[in-house]
Amino acid sequence: MTTVPVLDAYWASRTNLIVEERSLRRDTAYLANLTETEKKAEGIIRDIKAVEAKTVWGFGVENVHEEIPVLFPGMEFLTAKELIDETRLFKILQKMPKGALLHAHLDGMVDPTILLRIALKHPAMHVRLPAPLSLTTSNESESRPLPEFMALPVSQFGITTDIASPEYVGGTWVPLRDARDRCSLGAEAFDEWVIGSLRINPTEAYKTHDSIYKIWQKFQSTFMVSRGLIGFKPVYEEYIYEFFRSSIEDGIMYVEARINFWYKYVSIYLFLLTMIGADGEDNVDHFEWLEIFERVVDRVKRELKEEGREDEFYGARIIYTTLRFISKEELEWYLDDCIALKQKFPHLIAGFDLVGDENVFHPLTYYLEPLLQFKERTKELGLDIPFIFHAGETLGDGDHVDQNLFDAILLGTKRIGHGFSMAKHPLLMKMCRERGIPLEVCPISNEILRLTSSMPMHPLPIFFNNGVPIALSSDDPAVFGNLILSYDYYQVLVSSEVSGLITLAVTARDSIQFSTLKDSEKQELLQIWERRWKAFVEEICTLTP
Amino acid sequence: MTTVPVLDAYWASRTNLIVEERSLRRDTAYLANLTETEKKAEGIIRDIKAVEAKTVWGFGVENVHEEIPVLFPGMEFLTAKELIDETRLFKILQKMPKGALLHAHLDGMVDPTILLRIALKHPAMHVRLPAPLSLTTSNESESRPLPEFMALPVSQFGITTDIASPEYVGGTWVPLRDARDRCSLGAEAFDEWVIGSLRINPTEAYKTHDSIYKIWQKFQSTFMVSRGLIGFKPVYEEYIYEFFRSSIEDGIMYVEARINFWYKYVSIYLFLLTMIGADGEDNVDHFEWLEIFERVVDRVKRELKEEGREDEFYGARIIYTTLRFISKEELEWYLDDCIALKQKFPHLIAGFDLVGDENVFHPLTYYLEPLLQFKERTKELGLDIPFIFHAGETLGDGDHVDQNLFDAILLGTKRIGHGFSMAKHPLLMKMCRERGIPLEVCPISNEILRLTSSMPMHPLPIFFNNGVPIALSSDDPAVFGNLILSYDYYQVLVSSEVSGLITLAVTARDSIQFSTLKDSEKQELLQIWERRWKAFVEEICTLTP
Repeated sequence: MTTVPVLDAYWASRTNLIVEERSLRRDTAYLANLTETEKKAEGIIRDIKAVEAKTVWGFGVENVHEEIPVLFPGMEFLTAKELIDETRLFKILQKMPKGALLHAHLDGMVDPTILLRIALKHPAMHVRLPAPLSLTTSNESESRPLPEFMALPVSQFGITTDIASPEYVGGTWVPLRDARDRCSLGAEAFDEWVIGSLRINPTEAYKTHDSIYKIWQKFQSTFMVSRGLIGFKPVYEEYIYEFFRSSIEDGIMYVEARINFWYKYVSIYLFLLTMIGADGEDNVDHFEWLEIFERVVDRVKRELKEEGREDEFYGARIIYTTLRFISKEELEWYLDDCIALKQKFPHLIAGFDLVGDENVFHPLTYYLEPLLQFKERTKELGLDIPFIFHAGETLGDGDHVDQNLFDAILLGTKRIGHGFSMAKHPLLMKMCRERGIPLEVCPISNEILRLTSSMPMHPLPIFFNNGVPIALSSDDPAVFGNLILSYDYYQVLVSSEVSGLITLAVTARDSIQFSTLKDSEKQELLQIWERRWKAFVEEICTLTP
Repeated sequence: MTTVPVLDAYWASRTNLIVEERSLRRDTAYLANLTETEKKAEGIIRDIKAVEAKTVWGFGVENVHEEIPVLFPGMEFLTAKELIDETRLFKILQKMPKGALLHAHLDGMVDPTILLRIALKHPAMHVRLPAPLSLTTSNESESRPLPEFMALPVSQFGITTDIASPEYVGGTWVPLRDARDRCSLGAEAFDEWVIGSLRINPTEAYKTHDSIYKIWQKFQSTFMVSRGLIGFKPVYEEYIYEFFRSSIEDGIMYVEARINFWYKYVSIYLFLLTMIGADGEDNVDHFEWLEIFERVVDRVKRELKEEGREDEFYGARIIYTTLRFISKEELEWYLDDCIALKQKFPHLIAGFDLVGDENVFHPLTYYLEPLLQFKERTKELGLDIPFIFHAGETLGDGDHVDQNLFDAILLGTKRIGHGFSMAKHPLLMKMCRERGIPLEVCPISNEILRLTSSMPMHPLPIFFNNGVPIALSSDDPAVFGNLILSYDYYQVLVSSEVSGLITLAVTARDSIQFSTLKDSEKQELLQIWERRWKAFVEEICTLTP
């Protein structure tokens, strides 16, 4: 017989090994010093999760939802969304204070339904399409026409017509409200067409476009469509307001939004467009973009103060971005523009980034000269505009996208957007851990853009176990349907037996810690977060599992 | 302007960083000392791969194969298989000397078409099913009846009947040949039914059973079906022969096969079954199983010698396995059985393992006492029966399957079967690297069992970059359709820009290095491999990219 001492020794060495491995994790220190309330809340959340793994996700039980053949916690978000909505766990997470939202593209932040509703208020907004609207095709997602939107000056207002009638002349601008009211397919079909062009549906993500290479085509097309709506000053202002207000309802306390300043926007039908003013003219420059942004920040802060909720919104800043398909010469214009904006709005410009499909467009090395020069210049000018680069948003192993990770770090990036392929790089993860370079991880974005097929396949546990700081983010929720960050929190929580509520708390704290706020501001915001977190865990403790 | 020295310094530090990270990789040392022929061959293979990435996989090109909507290198194997077959790269890899096959379950090694052909030769082989055969159901994979097979003694031979006729009485044994000949659905439909029950089809893997939890149900059922065929001594012997001969054609030089010795096999219809002798009686004990195995090894070696190809097969050994759903008391019987077989056939028994769905059945800790006791006993007896455990074949993070990795290592496993979730464990990967514990990685198995949706999502690059030794294996090719290991090699090669032909060569060498052969035998086999490798790269050098 194996003796008791032999068994005891085994279990002791096993415990030690697990403890040793977890020592790198950022939640380990926090877990060692929990309050009694936190301990209890952590346990209650684990219990609720375990119950719902069976009752909602059929884990180890069959046929909980016969209409969904394959079901498990952390499964495909677009299939699971309605089930998630009904869980207790999700409803609890909606109330959690989430700290800062660090990876969010402004053009992808507001529910398309709301965006359309805002746009419909403005008589100047027009729509057109290449040919009469027909929605009865065999393959919806690939052959439906895309709407193009633009605000026009009164003198150019279009004529009222039925865009679904054979008489509609392709390319003719029609006032948006009229187009909807007079559409012979019905207003509901019209809305469904517009909204479908602004977000990715489950068939596209999981069938027709089920690869990172293919889904990006649909993904990019949604921005081409939304740009015509958002790029109209009165819509833009209301859009940003909606973004902040809905973020606040979700427990987000501060935002660093990536705004695409690519100047000459070539729309789907090759129309040059930047931002249209209330008069329908293309006359809103980048300085004004920032004024609008600041005005909305101030408005929201003022409103919250009036509502006695000033703790809930600390403000918002902007990460200047342009698209990584421009030439390196063109980049210089944007870098200059970024510096000019920073000089005028030092409190608003938080950093610089390049966006767009890394797999298809230029690697960071292509822009090496202007980027290094920018570092020198901002240093000389005493301007703090850190790089906050997208990098490694790929499944590639050693290709130029995967290698962007080396360059992001060597160029001194403050954080890394996505960093999905970082899991392949033990040395770079060590550098992130030691230098405090967090990854802005966007779980649902990664899944819908087919970097991973489900959350259990996501490399997030690898990042956690290597002690890489993490800020969970929603990326482009308008396109992905993860309209609040709570969905991402949910998917992370149900996909792990290691990570729990405290792990999420540590990422929320880190989102503040690794923001571009000043140290004094971080301390202030952290204190507010602590207060709200305390109230949150106390509320959990009143629940029965 | 950024000065040239600044740029030069950047590029130098970039190169250093990449070199430093790759220093852990096991192919790094080998790559530093390539012969000119190897260098040239590596380049030719990279060129062919780059060409076929476009021409075959449409990488960056659209609509290469319109019938497959989503196409990329390393995509779903069952969809891609016919395309792979036609590539130059695959045809080249078929000729590569692959060293040892270290992770192969005997019951899943022979093409079902061949297995059925072998079974049809034997009048004793019978088939039955619960009700008359009908193949026209709405959901094929879930509602088709499974065939049950068994060899019967002459006195119990069944009557000839049409199993698809309404007159067929469910559960009645029918001679296999007659059942096929008289099947009113036709012999082709009959074969398709039998073969479909022995392997996983694309609809099952990628639609109806698209999760690790669900696909295992189908996976396990294939073994229940095949057991009745393989568990008949005359079929068994011919089956092993086919396994070895087809492996040799694929460049495999030595095999360590996992054999399931679970004694009382409960079939799908709860019939107790172990192995049936030529007389149709259940009378073939485990000693005889090993005698048969050894006889086939000797036969194949003799035949190859006669063919002047003795370099191509070094032999085969057995990893004793039983199923991880038995009680710990039952395990003791198997451990004793394993010791008894080792004492009689010391050269054949290579190790011990537990098999079956880790997610559902017992963790290693459940068997801790008998396993620790076995270590003590074999030590006392001077027997070398290392554990070679399956562990971490899961998407779980910190669940009992993921934690099996800690126990496999603490129990002194010589290798780890799969170790899929090892990517989450930086400390355990370090231990594997330092202690020389390789992972038996089965890429296509992992993909079809839905641990990963495609090869680019597979954690293999993480293992490589952490310096974990790897032996690529095919697991259960009869069920997965990856009938030769070349398919796994192919999928690995096309999914990385880092790993190349030399990386595969290093894994092939490691498969020998980390086998259970004695050191002198390893040296001998490595020398043979070197000879064949040299000839292989020379042949590649004659090709034009």
